[in-house]
Amino acid sequence: MNFQPLTPDLIAAFEQIVGEAYVLTAQRAEADVYADYGRDHTEDLHFAPDVVLRPGNVDEISKIVRLCHEHHVPVTARGAGTGLSGGALPVHHGVVLSTERLNRIIQIDERNLQATVEPGVINEAFQVAVKEVGLFYPPDPASKGSCSLGGNLAHSSGGPKAVKYGTTRDYVLNLEVVLPTGDVIWTAANTLKNSTGYNLTQLMVGSEGTLGIITKVVFRLLPYPQHNILMLVPFRREEQAAEAVSAVFRAGVIPSGMEFMEREAIAWSSDYLKIPLTLPEDIKAHLLIELDGQDMDQLYKEAEQVYGVLEHYDVGEILLADNATQKDELWKIRRNIGNSVRYNSVYKEEDTVVPRAELPTLLKGVKEIGARYGFKSVCYGHAGDGNLHVNIIRGELTDEQWNVGLRQPITEIFELCVKLGGTISGEHGIGLVQKGYIGIALQETNLELMRGIKKVFDPHGILNPGKIF
Amino acid sequence: MNFQPLTPDLIAAFEQIVGEAYVLTAQRAEADVYADYGRDHTEDLHFAPDVVLRPGNVDEISKIVRLCHEHHVPVTARGAGTGLSGGALPVHHGVVLSTERLNRIIQIDERNLQATVEPGVINEAFQVAVKEVGLFYPPDPASKGSCSLGGNLAHSSGGPKAVKYGTTRDYVLNLEVVLPTGDVIWTAANTLKNSTGYNLTQLMVGSEGTLGIITKVVFRLLPYPQHNILMLVPFRREEQAAEAVSAVFRAGVIPSGMEFMEREAIAWSSDYLKIPLTLPEDIKAHLLIELDGQDMDQLYKEAEQVYGVLEHYDVGEILLADNATQKDELWKIRRNIGNSVRYNSVYKEEDTVVPRAELPTLLKGVKEIGARYGFKSVCYGHAGDGNLHVNIIRGELTDEQWNVGLRQPITEIFELCVKLGGTISGEHGIGLVQKGYIGIALQETNLELMRGIKKVFDPHGILNPGKIF
Repeated sequence: MNFQPLTPDLIAAFEQIVGEAYVLTAQRAEADVYADYGRDHTEDLHFAPDVVLRPGNVDEISKIVRLCHEHHVPVTARGAGTGLSGGALPVHHGVVLSTERLNRIIQIDERNLQATVEPGVINEAFQVAVKEVGLFYPPDPASKGSCSLGGNLAHSSGGPKAVKYGTTRDYVLNLEVVLPTGDVIWTAANTLKNSTGYNLTQLMVGSEGTLGIITKVVFRLLPYPQHNILMLVPFRREEQAAEAVSAVFRAGVIPSGMEFMEREAIAWSSDYLKIPLTLPEDIKAHLLIELDGQDMDQLYKEAEQVYGVLEHYDVGEILLADNATQKDELWKIRRNIGNSVRYNSVYKEEDTVVPRAELPTLLKGVKEIGARYGFKSVCYGHAGDGNLHVNIIRGELTDEQWNVGLRQPITEIFELCVKLGGTISGEHGIGLVQKGYIGIALQETNLELMRGIKKVFDPHGILNPGKIF
Repeated sequence: MNFQPLTPDLIAAFEQIVGEAYVLTAQRAEADVYADYGRDHTEDLHFAPDVVLRPGNVDEISKIVRLCHEHHVPVTARGAGTGLSGGALPVHHGVVLSTERLNRIIQIDERNLQATVEPGVINEAFQVAVKEVGLFYPPDPASKGSCSLGGNLAHSSGGPKAVKYGTTRDYVLNLEVVLPTGDVIWTAANTLKNSTGYNLTQLMVGSEGTLGIITKVVFRLLPYPQHNILMLVPFRREEQAAEAVSAVFRAGVIPSGMEFMEREAIAWSSDYLKIPLTLPEDIKAHLLIELDGQDMDQLYKEAEQVYGVLEHYDVGEILLADNATQKDELWKIRRNIGNSVRYNSVYKEEDTVVPRAELPTLLKGVKEIGARYGFKSVCYGHAGDGNLHVNIIRGELTDEQWNVGLRQPITEIFELCVKLGGTISGEHGIGLVQKGYIGIALQETNLELMRGIKKVFDPHGILNPGKIF
């Protein structure tokens, strides 16, 4: 791509559009604030933007993007910066366009079980707001307290509840999008069904800010499930934990959460949070299983069915959370595994995903590859979806080992995923750090189609350059 | 588009590829068989193909399409020909490529709750096959006994169960597709989640055979719901039937079916089927409400909640189906409304869709427009999704009134849909007959993007030309 540098004239034009207070440059922002816009939660990577813009509405974004399109300046949209694949990193510098000020919940439509929101709304804030009127927005990434809905859309984020309720993708009805030319469209209609032309909505979701900047979203919602049951099941053998996942579904139960945590994952996180947890020597892994619904009797029956399945495995004492505090603590442990790993060491996160029943084979393969190449990994994730997060720990690895030596084993892990019918990212996206591996998952013909689509939307290639392919 | 005529050399090449027995031309097929390949279930439209090919596998399809690409010959893929928007009509003649011989259920993967099938499999045959092993494939268009899964994918078909379970789109994990160049790709992976590049799967679903020919599908499945309750609720006022729909959802119940039928719809269908049904004079509309699940006690509780909601409306005596035969009959009546209308008269079917709570306003508007322009309509459909099928009856209308005079009122109906947050097709697709109206639902910028995408996939424009836009 042939990008142009940012000129003082362009900076002045941006100031005209968004107001001086919302234009940050290295010269006149506090150094650490400014630096933060050049990183996300991916390893320890940093790329400096030339300018950070914090527009307040769709018109401003349209004007900014139109200018950048005309002047061939890269624009990297940014939500809350919690991404794990480097999607928000401005690798070609230029403009970082933060959506943090587009943070309004515009409407919660109780008649239609829908809501219209801006992309800068924090996931959990949205969940809480709709819950207040008895409604439910299920997608809940581990970072729900800090990640933005716009970022969730960019990567089609999942979270524990995806196993029953699907990912972000499944709740989007309609998107307002600023195209790379500055034009603004709505992708669809506010309906549950739509067979009117190509599905631009689903093309936009998961496109990681390379096809347009989402400025409004219409989500569908569900009635809030009034009750839940949460159990922590300790296994003496890791593969059995992975095997039990598939067995529960085959018994006809669809849990609202089915999380796998190997011993180290749960140990590191409970230490990090200072939540005491008994971990007998012989326990190698846990499943955290949640059931939800509108009726407690029904949940007890389902729990009995789950217990029936678990009898066939070598499990320790099952902890059935008996109050809200205990449930919160268990979920907190699960959600903070990533943070606890980050607290211990820089790490690379591989977001592997396979058909659910192939999880034991994947897990074994990951450990075997790790042993062969001499790296340690902490594994956990959404076992109900076959989505295993493999955290490769830097520990004492040298720069050479870390930056070059891991390429071959990571390639082997991804090749195993594909062999098992899976792929290389379930919910984190390709972004920057998985880009080099995309050829493992997708044929060149697929990539050619994607590049062709990119060109239709973004002829000058200004939106989030250097990502995906 | 600059298409080339079919030459005898090309016909010979096709014979080479698929075998002479599977190449039909006007000269050597029975006239009525051949004519059938030129029509579907849309009004009384007919377009003659130059040749009908019935390939047996993906390789043959790839070779056919590659030849057509090189020679600029149109290819219109065809499933079972039950479409209602003219999607399978070869309006530019050329090749009709029937997928009827690709009718194998390749694998039902009970471990992963997935199945791999060919596009020519009939929807109901697939449902029955997976049910035999305790699994559930929910999408069930009214024509489920005769429509093919490939056609369902082309239009993202829905059906009564979509209200709880979503449409065809929501069950597709991965597609094998022959591109317009003859290249073959898989669009994704066999996983429940996927954030690996642009979503080509969802782009293909609903693209009505204009971007590629689907040759294999991996569907996800659910555990089969063991129980259901079905009730037929008569209303003295049509708008109240439409209003009750939204109220049921707000009470926290998600029915597995929520069908609206105005008086004439149910009367025509029961007459047509010769199923006697008492229809008191004062009953203007019915809701057919189905609840399903794994537990009968739970369903009784939900049914009570529904009854509680219905108390607030002016309803007649609710018929609670008390055995499987009665349930089948009620569903048969619902499913045969389209057939009964067709039996009575040629009709135009408008597949209107709005946010659920706007249904009363849409229904009132349709009737008001009909009264103003002097046409009769029979209305019914998937009220839970806000999807109302408006059957405009030809009756005694002249050719002029039918072909030209209805354009303005149909435009007004669609404009009303869009004004209410809806769009012009919920599950039938745009095809040929709604093509002239697409500008009501989509901005020119959206259409430009779609045309751009079409060009990326199909530079010679050979696949199903003359459809959508």
